[in-house]
Amino acid sequence: MAFIDEHFLLKTNTARRLYHEFAETLPIIDYHNHLPPNEIADDKLFENITQAWLYGDHYKWRAMRTSGVDESFITGNKSDQEKFTKWAETVPATLRNPLYHWTHLELKRYFNVSDLLSATTADRIYEECSEKLQSDEYSVRNLLRKMNVKLLCTTDDPTDSLEHHKRIQDGNLEIKVLPAFRPDAAMNISDISKWKTYVQKLESVSDTSINSFDSFLTALKRRHNYFASMGCAVSDHGLEEMYADDFDDKSIALIFNKLLSGGAIEPHEERKFKSAMLYHFAVWDHEKGWVQQYHLGALRNNNTRRLKDLGADTGWDSIGDFPQGRTLSRFFDRLDKQNNLAKTVIYNLNPADNHLFASMTGNFNDGSFPGKIQWGSAWWFLDQKDGMTDQINTLSNIGLISKFIGMLTDSRSFLSFPRHEYFRRILCNLFGDDIENGELPDDIELSGKVISDICYNNAVNYFGWNGLG
Amino acid sequence: MAFIDEHFLLKTNTARRLYHEFAETLPIIDYHNHLPPNEIADDKLFENITQAWLYGDHYKWRAMRTSGVDESFITGNKSDQEKFTKWAETVPATLRNPLYHWTHLELKRYFNVSDLLSATTADRIYEECSEKLQSDEYSVRNLLRKMNVKLLCTTDDPTDSLEHHKRIQDGNLEIKVLPAFRPDAAMNISDISKWKTYVQKLESVSDTSINSFDSFLTALKRRHNYFASMGCAVSDHGLEEMYADDFDDKSIALIFNKLLSGGAIEPHEERKFKSAMLYHFAVWDHEKGWVQQYHLGALRNNNTRRLKDLGADTGWDSIGDFPQGRTLSRFFDRLDKQNNLAKTVIYNLNPADNHLFASMTGNFNDGSFPGKIQWGSAWWFLDQKDGMTDQINTLSNIGLISKFIGMLTDSRSFLSFPRHEYFRRILCNLFGDDIENGELPDDIELSGKVISDICYNNAVNYFGWNGLG
Amino acid sequence: MAFIDEHFLLKTNTARRLYHEFAETLPIIDYHNHLPPNEIADDKLFENITQAWLYGDHYKWRAMRTSGVDESFITGNKSDQEKFTKWAETVPATLRNPLYHWTHLELKRYFNVSDLLSATTADRIYEECSEKLQSDEYSVRNLLRKMNVKLLCTTDDPTDSLEHHKRIQDGNLEIKVLPAFRPDAAMNISDISKWKTYVQKLESVSDTSINSFDSFLTALKRRHNYFASMGCAVSDHGLEEMYADDFDDKSIALIFNKLLSGGAIEPHEERKFKSAMLYHFAVWDHEKGWVQQYHLGALRNNNTRRLKDLGADTGWDSIGDFPQGRTLSRFFDRLDKQNNLAKTVIYNLNPADNHLFASMTGNFNDGSFPGKIQWGSAWWFLDQKDGMTDQINTLSNIGLISKFIGMLTDSRSFLSFPRHEYFRRILCNLFGDDIENGELPDDIELSGKVISDICYNNAVNYFGWNGLG
Repeated sequence: MAFIDEHFLLKTNTARRLYHEFAETLPIIDYHNHLPPNEIADDKLFENITQAWLYGDHYKWRAMRTSGVDESFITGNKSDQEKFTKWAETVPATLRNPLYHWTHLELKRYFNVSDLLSATTADRIYEECSEKLQSDEYSVRNLLRKMNVKLLCTTDDPTDSLEHHKRIQDGNLEIKVLPAFRPDAAMNISDISKWKTYVQKLESVSDTSINSFDSFLTALKRRHNYFASMGCAVSDHGLEEMYADDFDDKSIALIFNKLLSGGAIEPHEERKFKSAMLYHFAVWDHEKGWVQQYHLGALRNNNTRRLKDLGADTGWDSIGDFPQGRTLSRFFDRLDKQNNLAKTVIYNLNPADNHLFASMTGNFNDGSFPGKIQWGSAWWFLDQKDGMTDQINTLSNIGLISKFIGMLTDSRSFLSFPRHEYFRRILCNLFGDDIENGELPDDIELSGKVISDICYNNAVNYFGWNGLG
Repeated sequence: MAFIDEHFLLKTNTARRLYHEFAETLPIIDYHNHLPPNEIADDKLFENITQAWLYGDHYKWRAMRTSGVDESFITGNKSDQEKFTKWAETVPATLRNPLYHWTHLELKRYFNVSDLLSATTADRIYEECSEKLQSDEYSVRNLLRKMNVKLLCTTDDPTDSLEHHKRIQDGNLEIKVLPAFRPDAAMNISDISKWKTYVQKLESVSDTSINSFDSFLTALKRRHNYFASMGCAVSDHGLEEMYADDFDDKSIALIFNKLLSGGAIEPHEERKFKSAMLYHFAVWDHEKGWVQQYHLGALRNNNTRRLKDLGADTGWDSIGDFPQGRTLSRFFDRLDKQNNLAKTVIYNLNPADNHLFASMTGNFNDGSFPGKIQWGSAWWFLDQKDGMTDQINTLSNIGLISKFIGMLTDSRSFLSFPRHEYFRRILCNLFGDDIENGELPDDIELSGKVISDICYNNAVNYFGWNGLG
Repeated sequence: MAFIDEHFLLKTNTARRLYHEFAETLPIIDYHNHLPPNEIADDKLFENITQAWLYGDHYKWRAMRTSGVDESFITGNKSDQEKFTKWAETVPATLRNPLYHWTHLELKRYFNVSDLLSATTADRIYEECSEKLQSDEYSVRNLLRKMNVKLLCTTDDPTDSLEHHKRIQDGNLEIKVLPAFRPDAAMNISDISKWKTYVQKLESVSDTSINSFDSFLTALKRRHNYFASMGCAVSDHGLEEMYADDFDDKSIALIFNKLLSGGAIEPHEERKFKSAMLYHFAVWDHEKGWVQQYHLGALRNNNTRRLKDLGADTGWDSIGDFPQGRTLSRFFDRLDKQNNLAKTVIYNLNPADNHLFASMTGNFNDGSFPGKIQWGSAWWFLDQKDGMTDQINTLSNIGLISKFIGMLTDSRSFLSFPRHEYFRRILCNLFGDDIENGELPDDIELSGKVISDICYNNAVNYFGWNGLG
């Protein structure tokens, strides 16, 4: 097999049939990403491939740093072309990293460039891709159309005005672009003064005076309602671990007042505060029939020096080893007991927790909806062939892969959508192997249906997007 | 390869030879399961396949709930045939889950049914299997005979009268059916009033007045002795983690008195109490030359609502992430120092602990018996092809697979014995691969002997059942 | 494929080309092992193969104990030939354990013996190998030359005089033999009286009166300087977990004084003390441009009885489950903030931590040197085909395998160097698979260069041993 040919990742004939006959042509539902809605509203054109591909991509940045590239070529003041050249020089050093596959898959699928990127080809590819990006065919909406994207959810703070989403909706874009409610900043009290600034912003945008935990909740609930009115059907949370301590309203009120007056709180109070917040968010999600997502287990901002220089989400995060079992159980149980448990997706960043997460979902799957509690797709550091394979196999072994809602990009870039293709090929290859090994019936329709469901239908049904046409 | 044909899971010719020449015809020693001894004593006939196959099988229940089936069809008041139909409809949704293999392997091996179970075939299969089950050929003893079971151990509470075991023994059944001593309820003080009821039952059955920790131990020891007199040679414990805190008799006596008078105890006292109990049980096991088993790491009863409705062991348990290393080490070391360490099997439920468990056994393998401390077979959520493969490979890498005592069903159903076949095929396939890849010598007798040992001989020798004939 | 033939572990033609054209003939840099420098200085001849192969090899001892061999044949007073016979009888029971491969690879590569070791061949092999070992061709230096070893680092306590290293250097051996600074004993206060004896020894060898934490540091720093003057460029630490608690000089001074006066200290004080020690060692390593290594996660000395009889490092250690993420992050961050972070290699013993370790390195790779922070090769219990494969794949997925400094033996035996061959074959096989599957470009030079770098060039550049000629 040649590098990234039509049979890429598809070793058996059955795998090839499954991919080409069932998965390949399905549209994409990207129910969680970090795309900037303003660029979709503007139907932005990029000036060059560095802006579209390297700006904001901390996966590539980490690889460059590991390869010995100076920061000035990564986030610094070098020119876009110089930055691209350094990335091109780094690419051959990323052999066997998912970046090596993604890079060449993206060059092929968006730009029809089949050359390998390296120091030798850097200039030619920079020019060819940059020129294309400047043409209307490569506007961000056309990039999405090229990838057959039907719906996507961005990730938005409760204080966000959603003005760009409004512009998109007013423009009747045929691709559905929805916001998602991510209130991490409302809970993040590691820097109190930053949090207080956030509370002020929330006061203003929600038109609510915040002087108590109750009014804080009122303000957030208003934003939750507003997001719903804008078509939002998904919330999301990024946490080290779930918080599910016992709490009562009175102590939370006191803790909140301490926070608001700038007083220090104890670690157990912080846990209680977060437990209360997560509980209320979850109840609202259930009320509205939203899906709630929890991304658990990242150890963030490890490098203080770089956090100061570059801010968060610039490539200094990694995988933590936080205890997950008991708190997840307690969190879900509290909601389930009160019949307040919404459809939920949990994602773990440490694959040592794969089996725990996969088995946890089964404790609260109550027959009310197929796959009500989902174990989410391999994420971030695990978003690669081995990570996806492990997730698919573990989910198959412990739960029901047939009810899985499948892949999402989680990306900040419009050039990341071939990750859906990557996932689909891996999925088809696993089923193909099983069929050819006699571990699944030799019935292509049976497995083909499951694959279509995972790649498209399940997500549509799960999120309730059936009416999208 | 066709689905579940004679070469099922056996990819190489060498694997096929190993299975068919060495493993296939060996009898089964099922040294740990949850079969009901009364049904063996009665040589029960089932009315239909739902009773034999779905009653009590919480693996299938979880799959049905995940698939969106209403509880009334699972544990509720629907008819047996309606329940079977819902299960049949669920089966195609279990593709790639071990249930899909088990289901069809069991239909083939017991009922000679080769059709795939689905909504289409549900009625036909229900009738065919139910009819067969009503015939003498399908009495529970004949089901065991059909699978070539030579010996099995049930799991029994110390307060159990073992009356059914007595009836079996009096009947001179050629299949050896032995009890196993599982005193979890004696240690479970999460519900004190339930525990006190248990203590009363223990008083009565042991004819011992329990008013102190000493008399509590005396009562339990009498039951231990009684179990031994009934042929028991195995104890078993289901725990989140091992308990091995320091304790002294005086404080345990005080803690026990608090418990008995219904007073609340502190978490550290609960740990001490459990540490003391486990210590004494272990000493008795050593005295009698029993094998002690520890099943560690389940996070149980996560769903309070369902626990109330349906009770324990109904499919609401999952995998925990408890710390395991230090306490296991301390527990074994305390016994070893006093030369009180019995043969022991440890099982982990979280595969993230695989290497820890495999390496822990080596710390107390002292040459007194080959494989004295065993790392048990892949269990519960891990009882599938990938889980078994990981356990076999990790044990091979860290310990000596040649001394492994092999597979057990851990099942509540008489229809689960093809899991031994499943295990044997996986085992033979791994050895076959290694031989054909030049990673093991091309000497079929050498590997064949190891496989025979793992599938049968090692268990016989380890448990001291050589005299069974 | 025949057992351990020329294509051993190399399944594809591409893998074979990669190994034979790129990896096979490269010299060996063994940057971490436990070889005894006195035996190199003496160019020792062994009397027999038991002395060269079984003395001190606790991997084999554990296997023998697990197999049921009495301790008298392992560490006891039986004759060398009797011990060898028992090992030979154990070997067939080690099928699928790395010992089975290592044993036969070592017999082939050093002694040209291709027979399988077993009870049958024990005497013949004992005689043939022992006779060879008595000839000059099998002196320890010639054993190293036979394996094409160019440089090795031993592991040495700060109090070591390094007299044997001096003798080696004075003798102008063409193989570079360097010490490594491993100050575990200086931090190990689990046995205070042992630690105080150590402090006295340190006083004497450093010619420093130790009556305070400052003078303790001064004494250790003098040894650090002395090691540097002897060519040392590497430190090493064996720890359960990293220690990175906050501390101030004053409290450390008090804790040290308590220790020195034999007073008991609290667990949190012990953590502070270790945190301070590790911090200072790390600063010195950075000052001198050394590479610092951290071996994390072993649960040691589990068997008190055997520890008393046989001492440490005799086969009673295993894998722990210590929390690793936060402390590693804090430790590195503290040093990075002050620009004191040296090149660093972290090794984890529990493979459940693989992804955490692999991702942690990326938080402090700052572009100053390619692969500045390294995730070390699969170690101890993980030093086998599956363990290496996992480490190589995880590093590929999460970091840059192309910058990896590769394999080391970590061994106490001169007969362990074929482990480099073993690693190289596994590495080439993985790249070969990827190329033949179309997951890497079909460009043998591209992958071949990466393989040469991993097997040799990267270590040379990383440790700064370019001038070795």
